[in-house]
This record gives sequence, C-alpha cells and structure tokens, in this order.
Amino acid sequence: MAGNSFGQAFRITTAGESHGGGNVVIIDGVPAGLPLSVDDLLPDLDRRRPGQSKIVTQRQEADTPEILSGVFDGQTTGTSIAILIRNQDQRSKDYSNIMNKYRPGHADYTFDAKYGTRDYRGGGRSSARETNVRVAAGAVAKKLLAELHDISIIGYVKQVGNIIADIPHPEAVTMEQVESNIVRCPDPVKAEQMIALIDEVRKDQDSIGGVSELVATNVPAGWGEPVFDKLKADLGKAMFTLPAVLGVEYGVGFGCATMRGTENNDIFRVKNDSITTDTNHHGGMLGGISSGMPIVLRCAIKPTSSLSREQDTVTRDGEQTTIATKGRHDPCLLPRFAPMGEAMIAIVLADHALRQRAARV
Amino acid sequence: MAGNSFGQAFRITTAGESHGGGNVVIIDGVPAGLPLSVDDLLPDLDRRRPGQSKIVTQRQEADTPEILSGVFDGQTTGTSIAILIRNQDQRSKDYSNIMNKYRPGHADYTFDAKYGTRDYRGGGRSSARETNVRVAAGAVAKKLLAELHDISIIGYVKQVGNIIADIPHPEAVTMEQVESNIVRCPDPVKAEQMIALIDEVRKDQDSIGGVSELVATNVPAGWGEPVFDKLKADLGKAMFTLPAVLGVEYGVGFGCATMRGTENNDIFRVKNDSITTDTNHHGGMLGGISSGMPIVLRCAIKPTSSLSREQDTVTRDGEQTTIATKGRHDPCLLPRFAPMGEAMIAIVLADHALRQRAARV
Amino acid sequence: MAGNSFGQAFRITTAGESHGGGNVVIIDGVPAGLPLSVDDLLPDLDRRRPGQSKIVTQRQEADTPEILSGVFDGQTTGTSIAILIRNQDQRSKDYSNIMNKYRPGHADYTFDAKYGTRDYRGGGRSSARETNVRVAAGAVAKKLLAELHDISIIGYVKQVGNIIADIPHPEAVTMEQVESNIVRCPDPVKAEQMIALIDEVRKDQDSIGGVSELVATNVPAGWGEPVFDKLKADLGKAMFTLPAVLGVEYGVGFGCATMRGTENNDIFRVKNDSITTDTNHHGGMLGGISSGMPIVLRCAIKPTSSLSREQDTVTRDGEQTTIATKGRHDPCLLPRFAPMGEAMIAIVLADHALRQRAARV
Amino acid sequence: MAGNSFGQAFRITTAGESHGGGNVVIIDGVPAGLPLSVDDLLPDLDRRRPGQSKIVTQRQEADTPEILSGVFDGQTTGTSIAILIRNQDQRSKDYSNIMNKYRPGHADYTFDAKYGTRDYRGGGRSSARETNVRVAAGAVAKKLLAELHDISIIGYVKQVGNIIADIPHPEAVTMEQVESNIVRCPDPVKAEQMIALIDEVRKDQDSIGGVSELVATNVPAGWGEPVFDKLKADLGKAMFTLPAVLGVEYGVGFGCATMRGTENNDIFRVKNDSITTDTNHHGGMLGGISSGMPIVLRCAIKPTSSLSREQDTVTRDGEQTTIATKGRHDPCLLPRFAPMGEAMIAIVLADHALRQRAARV
Repeated sequence: MAGNSFGQAFRITTAGESHGGGNVVIIDGVPAGLPLSVDDLLPDLDRRRPGQSKIVTQRQEADTPEILSGVFDGQTTGTSIAILIRNQDQRSKDYSNIMNKYRPGHADYTFDAKYGTRDYRGGGRSSARETNVRVAAGAVAKKLLAELHDISIIGYVKQVGNIIADIPHPEAVTMEQVESNIVRCPDPVKAEQMIALIDEVRKDQDSIGGVSELVATNVPAGWGEPVFDKLKADLGKAMFTLPAVLGVEYGVGFGCATMRGTENNDIFRVKNDSITTDTNHHGGMLGGISSGMPIVLRCAIKPTSSLSREQDTVTRDGEQTTIATKGRHDPCLLPRFAPMGEAMIAIVLADHALRQRAARV
Repeated sequence: MAGNSFGQAFRITTAGESHGGGNVVIIDGVPAGLPLSVDDLLPDLDRRRPGQSKIVTQRQEADTPEILSGVFDGQTTGTSIAILIRNQDQRSKDYSNIMNKYRPGHADYTFDAKYGTRDYRGGGRSSARETNVRVAAGAVAKKLLAELHDISIIGYVKQVGNIIADIPHPEAVTMEQVESNIVRCPDPVKAEQMIALIDEVRKDQDSIGGVSELVATNVPAGWGEPVFDKLKADLGKAMFTLPAVLGVEYGVGFGCATMRGTENNDIFRVKNDSITTDTNHHGGMLGGISSGMPIVLRCAIKPTSSLSREQDTVTRDGEQTTIATKGRHDPCLLPRFAPMGEAMIAIVLADHALRQRAARV
Repeated sequence: MAGNSFGQAFRITTAGESHGGGNVVIIDGVPAGLPLSVDDLLPDLDRRRPGQSKIVTQRQEADTPEILSGVFDGQTTGTSIAILIRNQDQRSKDYSNIMNKYRPGHADYTFDAKYGTRDYRGGGRSSARETNVRVAAGAVAKKLLAELHDISIIGYVKQVGNIIADIPHPEAVTMEQVESNIVRCPDPVKAEQMIALIDEVRKDQDSIGGVSELVATNVPAGWGEPVFDKLKADLGKAMFTLPAVLGVEYGVGFGCATMRGTENNDIFRVKNDSITTDTNHHGGMLGGISSGMPIVLRCAIKPTSSLSREQDTVTRDGEQTTIATKGRHDPCLLPRFAPMGEAMIAIVLADHALRQRAARV
Repeated sequence: MAGNSFGQAFRITTAGESHGGGNVVIIDGVPAGLPLSVDDLLPDLDRRRPGQSKIVTQRQEADTPEILSGVFDGQTTGTSIAILIRNQDQRSKDYSNIMNKYRPGHADYTFDAKYGTRDYRGGGRSSARETNVRVAAGAVAKKLLAELHDISIIGYVKQVGNIIADIPHPEAVTMEQVESNIVRCPDPVKAEQMIALIDEVRKDQDSIGGVSELVATNVPAGWGEPVFDKLKADLGKAMFTLPAVLGVEYGVGFGCATMRGTENNDIFRVKNDSITTDTNHHGGMLGGISSGMPIVLRCAIKPTSSLSREQDTVTRDGEQTTIATKGRHDPCLLPRFAPMGEAMIAIVLADHALRQRAARV
C-alpha cells in the first residue's frame, strides 16, 4: 500500500535513503536453481554508480552489494533474496544549508506536504541513490531472463538537448557500442557532440535533458496480461518510477498522432516459419502483449534539478529565499540512466516470464 | 496475477468480452456513505458509447448499467460494488470471416500466442468494449473525489493528425467547452478542422491518430507513494492500460529533452498563503508526488487498426492472405477516448486519496 | 484492501448481499483450455442451497448461475470469468422488525460500528448467501485440480453436539458415503443420531454446533510458500473466512498439546518408491508445505445465532429490548457447510498449483 | 507470490535463513511521526531469543537489530523501514550429518520436493530463526497500536501436556504476571508443574506440546474487512504462519461444537453508555469484525520435532536410516512462542487500524 514493492511473481521490495545505514532490496520469487553470486551484480552497479566519468557527478559511492539470503552453494534456493548496499560517502554537511528550503524540481516540498516531515539530508527516500538496489535486482532478473529465454536488454542515449543520435536499427545495438563512450550513445559522431554539450552546460552551472532508448530482444510472443497488467502498462509504470522521467513512448510513440492506419499498421508476415511483422511501429506489443518483435521504448528525462547556481525558492515557512545546491550533481542524467532503465525492464519481464507459466492448463 | 485488477485501496476488478453475457466491474474500497445511483454513471457512459455522432463508430450499444450490490437506500454501504453492463448489439456474423486471420494492429495474434486459443468474435477481451465498466467505475471514483476534495478531471482532444489545438491554459478548460463539439476539442476553430479531417479519412476507408490531453485540478499536494507507486507511475500505468495508447507524457513531456535546468525548473512561490510554482513544466507532480498544481498529461493514440480496406496479413496456419474488417469502426479513436482516460485518472486518484489517509500517525 | 479478493495466481473477487441484484464472483487466473460449463457448477451449488432437506433452512433459493465471460466454445479462454447468481427469494419483510436491533451472534452491531450504516435487510454482506458464488468458484477450482492432478476434496460432518462420528480413515471417505444421508456424515449410525438431535433442537427453537472435517487427497508434495503463504496458513485463513467458524485444526490438531515429540513425529518411510509417512499426525503439511500425505483439517462451527425464540439485545440507540428472528434458519449449519469448506480448499489449492509452476528455473 | 510478504496497509516482507548473512524485514506502511528507536525492539527480541532460561534451547543468539532506514531524528518518516539482524552463532557443523537425511516433523523433505534443492544448514528458511525479524516488526506494530489506540497484546502459556492453567479472566492478565516465571504462565501453581514437566521431557531426550493463549484488549469495534479479510481470517492466517502451530481457535473455540445457540450467543448489553456483551464466547469478533470485546485466541503447538534421540527416517535417495539431531533444541516451544504470537497479532491489528481509515467517506 505504501508503494515500496513492485511486481507480482518476481517481486521486489526496497528500503533505504541517501543517508542512513544503506539500501536493501528483497527479491521474492526468484526460482530455485539459478546460478548467482555477487559478481553477477557488479557490472550494472558499476555502470550506474557516480564518479565513473567526467560527465557525471563526482560523488564517490562504491555501491558494494552483499547478498544476505536466498543463495546457497552458488545457486538460488527459491527463498527470498535480500541484497544490502551500505551507504558510504555521506557528506551530510553538503545538505545542511537546505534543511528548511525547498529545492526547485525536487521532492522536498511534496514530501513535507505528504508526511508533515522529511529527511532533509540529501533527497532522503526521493534520492536517486535508492536505485542502486533496483539495479542489483535488475541484474538478478537479467540473469534469469538470459538463462530462460536468451533475452537481452540494452539502454542507450538517443538524444541530449538538440543532438539526436541516428540509430536506424535499435534491435541491433550492442552493449559494446553503447559502452564505447562515456555518454553511452551508440552513434559515435553524435556521442562526441553530446559529451561536448554536457561539458558546456556543466561549466555553465546548468544541466540538460534528453531521451533514453531501451530495447529488449528475444522476448517471446504472448507475455503480458490483459487488461490491466499489459506488458505495455507494466513497463510504462516501471519507467515512470524512475526519477526525472517525464514521458514514455513505444515504437513510433507520439509520432503515431500524425499517421494514418494504413501507414501505421504493421503487416504480418511469415519468416523462417514464424509469424512476424514487416515493420515495428507497434514497438513489440499488440493489445499490450508481446508480439515477438523487439520491444522498443523511449523515456524523456528532464534536466537535473540540482543546480549550483542560485535559484529563487521558498522556505518551509513560506518565506521567499534563494538556493544553490552546492553538492556534486550530474549535469545530465542520461549516461547513468541506461542501467536503471534496463533494470526496471528486466524486472518487469522476469515477472511476466513467470506469470506466463500459469496461462495455459 | 492474471491482470484483471487495478488499484490498491480503491480497487477495480473486471471481466467481460465484446461478446457473451456482458461486462462486470467489482469496485472494492468505496467508503460507506457516498450517495450513489445509476444516474451517476450515465453521463460518462453516454460520452463513451458508440453511435453518439457521425465521426465515431455507428455500432449501437446502449451500455445500460445495473448496480448489483454495495448500495442501499441511495448510499454506498462500504461493501464491494458490482456493476453489470449487458452486451446487446452483437453482430457476431460481422466477424466470422476473420476467425482464422490475424488483423494487423490487433491482439489476435498475441492472444493466440499467449493462450493457444482466443475468442475470435470481435476482439474478445482485447476489445475496447471492456472499457465501458471502467468508465462506470470511473464515475464512482469521480463522485468520491468531488465529494471529498472538489477534484475535477477533464479530457479533450489536443491533436488529430497535423492539427494541433491551441490550449494555453489546460487547467481552465471546462466540460462545456469540451462537449460543445463532437470531436471534444475546446479550440473551436481547430475542432472544425479535426472533424473535417476525420470525415476525410473515414471516406478514404482509413483512420488517423492523435493526442489526448487530460487535466486534474484541485488535487491536494502530497498524494502518491514513493518509490514504486508514485502518482506519476500509477497514472502512467493507467493510461497505458487503455487500448491504442503508444505514449504518455506529463507537463512539458518530451519537450524536456531540449531544455536546460534553469529553464525547466519551476520556481516555488507563495501565493495566497500557499506554496505553488510559477510555471507547471513538471505537470503537477514532483518526485512522483502531487504538488498541488494541476496534473496535466497527454496520451498518444494510434490510428484505429481496423480498416475496411484490404490489408495483407497471415492466417493462424501461417498462410499469407488479405483481410478487410467489415465492421463499423471509429475512423479516429480520440473523441471517445476522453471519458476512458478521465475514468482511469479518477480511479488512480481515488486510490491515492484513500491511501494518503494512512500516511501520518 | 477492503477484503473482497482472495488468492494470488487463482484469485477470486466477490460482491453481493442477501438482498439486491445478486452475487457475483470474478475469477482471475483460470488457465486457458479448461473445459467448463454451467453444468460443472450445479452439483455443489445444489449441495449448498437452502431448502434441500428437512434439517436445513426451508428458504427456497434456486442459486442459478450464469457464466458471463471467460468461456468460449466450452473452454476457458484464460481471461477473467464472471459468474452471476441472481437473488430471488427475498422476503425482506421477514427482516423489517430488526432494522434497529442487533441480533446476538450476528454482525449487525459490528457492521454499524465499522461503517456507520448497514444494509439491514437480512445480513447484507455478512449473510451466508455470499458463499454461493464462492461455491461456484470452488467448482471451477475443483475442475482445474482434477484435470491437472486428480486431486479430490471431500467435506463431511464429524461432530454435532456430543455425537462424534467414527471415521478412522478420513482419506478413504467417498462422496457417495457423505451424500448418502441428509446430515452429510459418512458414519451412518452416528448420522441418524445427528439428524435426530438437529430435529430436536429445531423443535426447541434452538440450534446446535459441530465439527466439520475436510480432506484433500492426491495433493503433490511441495505446494505452499514459505514463510507467510504456507499452505497451512492460506487454508487456515480460507476456513476462517467462512461464517460461524471458531476454530481450525490440522492432523492431530489441539490433541498435539498432550503429545510428546516421540509420539507426534510422523516417521518417513519409502513405499512404492515414494517417500511417505507412517502416520499423518501432521495433517499433510510440514513446514506449511504439502508432504504428499492427505490434507486433513477440521473446523469448529458455532450453533446458528438466529433463533426464533426471544433473546435479550439492544437497539442501535442503546435501549435494552428483545428479539426473535422469525425467518427460516438452519438449526445446524453443519450439513450445508461441507460444500462451502470444500470450495475454499479448492480455491487455495488451485492457487498454489499455479504458484508452484514458478518455483524452479 | 512467493509468500514472503504479509499484510496490506501495514505490510512486512522478510528474507533470511538460519545461516548466511542474517535476516531482514522491510516494513512498508508505518505512518510518519511515530517515535521509534532500536530500544523499542529489544524487549520482545529478548523474550524470543534462545538461551534465556534453562527450559529453552541453550543456543546463544544475540539478535541485535539495526534499523537501516525509515527513521530520522527519532521518528518514522513514512518511508519503508528495514531492520537487519545478523546471524552470529552458526555452528553449521552441528547440522552436517543431516545433509542427506530428512528430519521427521521438519520441512527438509517438503522443501526438497518443492525446490529440488535446499539449504541443509539448520532449517534454512524454515528455521524459526526467521521469526526474529517478525518480532522486531511486531514491536513496531505494538508501538503504533499503543500510540493510536492504547491497545495491548499479551500471550502466555495456557497448557503444557496435561497441565492446564486456570485463567478465568484472560483480559486481566498482565505482562508482569506472565514474565514472573520462565515458562510464561500467569497461573503460578501450574507454572511450576509445567517447568517440572518440561525439565522431565528434556532429560528424557523428548519434547512436549501445549497451548498458547493470546489476548488483545482495547481493540475498537469495527476492525476487519468482509468477506475475505475478516479480522478472524487474517489473525488465523497469521498464527498458522508460525512454526509448529496445528490449531487456532477463538473464544469458546472447539467447545462451540457441543453448545446450543441459546447458550453460545453472547447477549448485547449497554454498559457505561457503550454496547458490549455479557459473555465473550465469540472471542472479540462477530462476522469476523471486532466487537470491542477482548480478542481471545489459542494456538495448539506441537512438541518440538528435533530430538536428540535416534528416530527412523529416510535419506534423499530413499534409503531407510536413523537420525538424531544433536543440536540444542527447545524441549517445549511454548515459552518462546508468546512474543512471536504477539508480534503477528500486532502486525494484523496495525494493518487493520490503517485499513479502517478508508471505511467511511
């Protein structure tokens, strides 16, 4: 009810803030017999962590996970898996000056409005730090999906400001291409321009928005549940749980507004004895259920709200004031978004992989 | 688990197909003491039903609801409310020719892939007819929200094809403006053009997409639950449960990609002793929790997939064939989308209204 | 949240009161491909219905079910199944005299305390009439369990007042034995005595309690989920949702209090190449998970609270008064309890049958 | 779905085994503003822990809790609370001899049947050690209930073997009386006899069963949700989630089988301007909803299955063998059951306290 769980058959429950003892995820529903160790969690945690390159926040957070339960002799036992990531770099003094001020674009005011109180050290529960255990849980989900169905999930930067990458075949993008540059854009020419732009806004004490594109391949046709737990709906919710996401679209997305049915309909064809579509305007789901085509979605990510420039705002008591958030912030959220987005997609797909087992007698 | 329920504290569970006995919703969690009768359900059902104007499908469905339980002496009793809408106009012969063919853009293929079988009369469970009981449940939610918080929710057409309405103040749009024309667009000039365009594509045996904008006003600050049941996430899921939605965005939406933080941040101000923001780029939620500003969202709606023109497709057995869906279909889904979208927003808000009661000691 | 749903993978949601349009159940999660028709529901509904014999209430309720959705061409489609049972025999005048009085042993007072209002015609939502759709849903669950695992579930009367049936082998009791007499006790000698006792209390304008025993055979070892959804816990909850149940026990039940470990432990043996236990003190579950032995449980059922004799009570306004409930009531709830108990067991087992599919990679 | 969560509005999710990193609970739904510190958790953890007296297991487990999140400046923030209890005394060598043998009365066999594998060090997830974090969560629930409604919950030993305590007024038992002896029985004469009996069975390398009685006072009338989440049903489930519980009964419990309606019905009276009943045969709930009378329930607890005597059993491979579990075990589970039972009752009541807030407009 209070919103700290996600999923049904593969279900994560999380706790933790930017400060305090750490963040925890309990994963309920991982089937017994999956090989799993801490090493499986590290690559994605490393892609998510602060301080990894010059265009992200320079905070240092090790994000070292500990698997507390549910794994024995290198395999999952079928019981719930708890993963703990301790908080380490907690310079709470960075935040002391904002205790009574509402940072524009942040959840400071809305948390106060909700609870009558808030943990003013960093963002508390609204800090993006809570996503570290989601990424850990996503790594477990990815492992399960790879084992069961050879599914792969890749996220990358499609757009930063006005710079739009040219990626004609989202389903063909490889992790190597994405990780070949620090902005995580598989179009190397545009990647350079994006990096330059991010560097420019950083120097300008400003930030910049963008669009992340994420692709899941090898998802079998038939996943997703009518009416409310359509794959489209669960993925959409998953994306909107992530900080700073202002829009989500599939396939042609908002571009469908100007299309006619004859243009937009993807025609069914038989290829290699299986049913597929010529085009993928639908983004991999029809009636909200996977069609076997690649799932392609995009998220609009707003520019980082924390700025070291002075901005107008108000205090808790309703006095007009100014604020400059002196901490170390990402000038652009896009490079670190990919592993978070992938994790949430993996968690949704793992859930529906297990749910699909109950679909037929 | 099989996805026919939505919400937590205010929770709907539905059943029903385009053909068969009818559609049912059970609403669990309506507080006792709310005045309610069938008359409360009729206006929105009337706005959703087929046959209401020349630019929507000419099927005739009365959509007459019966409240089976949970209401006594004109008031809710606190127990579960069941609403039944019988199916009436069921020309199943219209569909018999498509029994073994997969309609492009529909869920025929994906349902077969999922279940190994499907109800081929109309869309079965994937038909938009199932939304009639959602609209009925939404009317109950609206009544509750109006009673408790004077909240109002209005949806309208923002865009059809290339025609974009000019609506500078979404929060000021009235139901009268929306209902003053058959396309449900509060910009009367653009409404005429939209109607003409829809008429044109209809004559052309084609269809056209568009964008729906929906606004909720008077939502108190503080609703929504970190981390997974953010209001942003639950509303996003709700919209993506509706047929034909390919994108959802809040506030500036995908427009945030090209904005800088200094531009995008909405500055807090104190007005009339309460905290608010100058602008509403954030669309009414910060950290996924309502800010007290109007909630503004837009949905991208694809052009109707059913076309009376011939299109290529395949049979269940993988043979190449053609199909023309002879039924009576909407040339544009936008005019009838508004009440569906409003209903889902109302259901989400009613859920969070009740959940918020548990937020403080 | 408001408690009208039960189960996870096989999930029922119900609505309805003793008076009003009728009772509805939506069953979410029935796999596609199960043969199903109204005829499958009738036998258990007939065993549950009033008026079936001289020792039960003489109210006449036909309990005719209609399957509204989820079944096509004689098979389930995988989508949600709604079943409607209209109310028919609604002599509300029987109840008008108790509108402001609290019947002892009933939920009249507690509903008022909860909701500030109640449907005073009959028991409203607390009437046992709501169990008719549970029995219908249970029949669907039984069909699924029989199809998948050849599981059978049988309930019968173990005790009425001081008369205790002698049933040394619960797992060997047949439906024919149970249905061979109107009290549903497979011990024919004790059955006669029970019938005589019930007749006696009826003439005395009184009622009598008893114990129901229920047995599920052929449940595979391994069903149930540690820690909270133990089969033991879910079955226990299921039984306590039924009206008038004051106690539930498994295997030796409360008899374990006087046993030593050496006595109580059921020793594992290998028989016919499978692992089993010599005795079944544990009642078919160890660690809350099925052991493959018969599941044996007993429910204590209180004497009917409605009495046609005068009893002291109070009015809503706190005035002392008397009440005699003039309606037609069961002098003993036991004969009609069996199908209700079986239904709830079937629903729990169907749920865990599906959940078990996600237990291993 | 995999059963590691319990509750709706006040919801706990747990992970952990007898061995490995430790046990964790995430509590979702604690309202903001509740004073809370580790000190609030210690008293009940101390009552639950092994090694506290001569009649319980002599294992030493410190059970030191750490609150990882959700508390700031001594108060709950409204966000999820994670509590970690590290495992410390893990003499896994005690268990190595049973790796391939099924201990009678334990879940070894059923876990293998379920998952195809198990953590054979101790009981793994089926070990009672997992209850330590439940007791911690229960302490949080108790604090909330005391703060909101002055509710108190007390458990004690009613019966060990044939020795039955004489407790005419369960609602008047105090924690001081219970804690005045090591068996936790408020009847001092019978307590001595129970202690002697437990000592005797221990010397005999045997164990003994019993009955625990638990009482909740000051629960307001009106809590619990018809139909499936009756307070009776949720409490019943809660008790059956605890290890070794074979029976649960309320009020007169199984004694109702021999009662007549005229005897069993509790007559309503007005006392001190409030409605109450003369007697409490119903155990504090009518129609499954609290009546304002004390909630009284009893649990049948089987004798400890682990015995240091040799018992027959089988190996994983189906070979007949013998087993003697050499570890340090409770000769009687009753003294340590009280805090576990209280915790689960508190968790259910906290859940319904919050759910009740949504019952009326």
